[in-house]
Amino acid sequence: MAKHTSVETGSEKRCFGGTVGFYSHDSEATGTRMNFSVYVPPAASEGPVPVLYYLAGLTCTEETFQIKAGAQRYAAEHGLILVAPDTSPRGVGNPGEDEDYDFGTGAGFYIDATREPWSENYNMYSYVSRELPEVVAAGFPADTERQGIFGHSMGGHGALTIALKNPERYRSVSAFAPICNPSEVPWGEKAFSGYLANRSEWRDHDATEIVRAKPLEHHILIDQGMDDEFLEEQLSPDAFEAACRESGQKLTLRRHPGYDHSYYFISTFMEDHIEHHAQALVE
Amino acid sequence: MAKHTSVETGSEKRCFGGTVGFYSHDSEATGTRMNFSVYVPPAASEGPVPVLYYLAGLTCTEETFQIKAGAQRYAAEHGLILVAPDTSPRGVGNPGEDEDYDFGTGAGFYIDATREPWSENYNMYSYVSRELPEVVAAGFPADTERQGIFGHSMGGHGALTIALKNPERYRSVSAFAPICNPSEVPWGEKAFSGYLANRSEWRDHDATEIVRAKPLEHHILIDQGMDDEFLEEQLSPDAFEAACRESGQKLTLRRHPGYDHSYYFISTFMEDHIEHHAQALVE
Repeated sequence: MAKHTSVETGSEKRCFGGTVGFYSHDSEATGTRMNFSVYVPPAASEGPVPVLYYLAGLTCTEETFQIKAGAQRYAAEHGLILVAPDTSPRGVGNPGEDEDYDFGTGAGFYIDATREPWSENYNMYSYVSRELPEVVAAGFPADTERQGIFGHSMGGHGALTIALKNPERYRSVSAFAPICNPSEVPWGEKAFSGYLANRSEWRDHDATEIVRAKPLEHHILIDQGMDDEFLEEQLSPDAFEAACRESGQKLTLRRHPGYDHSYYFISTFMEDHIEHHAQALVE
Repeated sequence: MAKHTSVETGSEKRCFGGTVGFYSHDSEATGTRMNFSVYVPPAASEGPVPVLYYLAGLTCTEETFQIKAGAQRYAAEHGLILVAPDTSPRGVGNPGEDEDYDFGTGAGFYIDATREPWSENYNMYSYVSRELPEVVAAGFPADTERQGIFGHSMGGHGALTIALKNPERYRSVSAFAPICNPSEVPWGEKAFSGYLANRSEWRDHDATEIVRAKPLEHHILIDQGMDDEFLEEQLSPDAFEAACRESGQKLTLRRHPGYDHSYYFISTFMEDHIEHHAQALVE
């Protein structure tokens, strides 16, 4: 499937009339071999289709979304390409890289690190928002003028911040249980202290801070389970909601009793998210 | 959720308005601790609903189906309980139990072993067809007069043979890429030689042999991917189809170009299987 010469195909599997494929390439942004997965829907055989990026949470890989989220059915129905990158560079060799589940490998936080030694390779912001779209454009039947982005938890933080900082690049954004206000919670404090050289940089990677200053024209969809084990300590949807109200950002924040942080929650509301993006992306 | 006193609840997670739960109990049939998972749909809050059993393939556990198959949405729509047992006893300690992926742990083949030492614990036929339904009946809002069964690969073999041997217990049966004629293929020959004391017992666990002698009144649905890496050597759908023709068994065998043996294949056709069972089970 991939036509880009530097992209190596791992496997490709038929799914809902399209193809789930696993690919790798040498990334300039991270200086490492990066993995990503792509679902190409049947409609792509008739010409380029819009692209929806999914950013996964802590400890996940490019496989998690394709295996657990049940999104291919809806992407096939609406004619969307789904792209899921890995969650960090791997095998860099920095001290402490593999010690904690919430820092280093599997925990890139979708920012460009400015603190040594992480700044050398941990550049997931540039990778996801700049390099990967070029790789996708070169290798897949993608209409990169029509891009959307969504994600879960750490990847929800990634999707919100990348969309808010690049309104010209993404026409739609949504998130499942995102880390909304990372500057104020343990996961975010650990990541930002580790990856960023100065505390003054934090607010530029915090969706609640960004949306308060500069809302999007299009509307944001967020789903949050009310039995989510990380809700109280890490996720802060109330702070994000308040900031949206202040700046006039249109937001649909749905709170679902009984649901937790897992892909059983995500798969339940996946159809609504794909429809949210399809409304903005599919003409 | 589980009311049966001997059943221990591992976790329960909300999914499509119902609950995916993971449970364990001391099994009489296997003499071991057995794990199983259950999806209870929202309709079960208003009274008992039919039960559909799913048997997974080699190396899988009770989790595989719940994570990868995307069946909960359809079970919620039709009001079916989904039960997925583990694929073998675990931790028995028999010599060679953990050496091969296709024999011993994760490879119980849904038969009652007659060869020592396996005959002590490897009694997955009795476990799935006799003991587990009693456990489900005691602990869940299940109408055990309305049961169906399906499965994948080794579990497709299990579903077909268990349904064919117990027409009074199961009103519906289907399979994804089942091992249809195990007596004649490497996986089946290895399992039957290892678990069964005499070659004369083999035909009693071979769906192609059973259906030729004693067809069901209800019709069987099988889906098979034509790029399935195990199709030629292990699965034998043609032999099963011929035997059905001989005995007058009604069969819908669909051959799908491009699809392989994975859950990307299974999830694509899951909706059709759940509808097949719902037609027989839901009044």
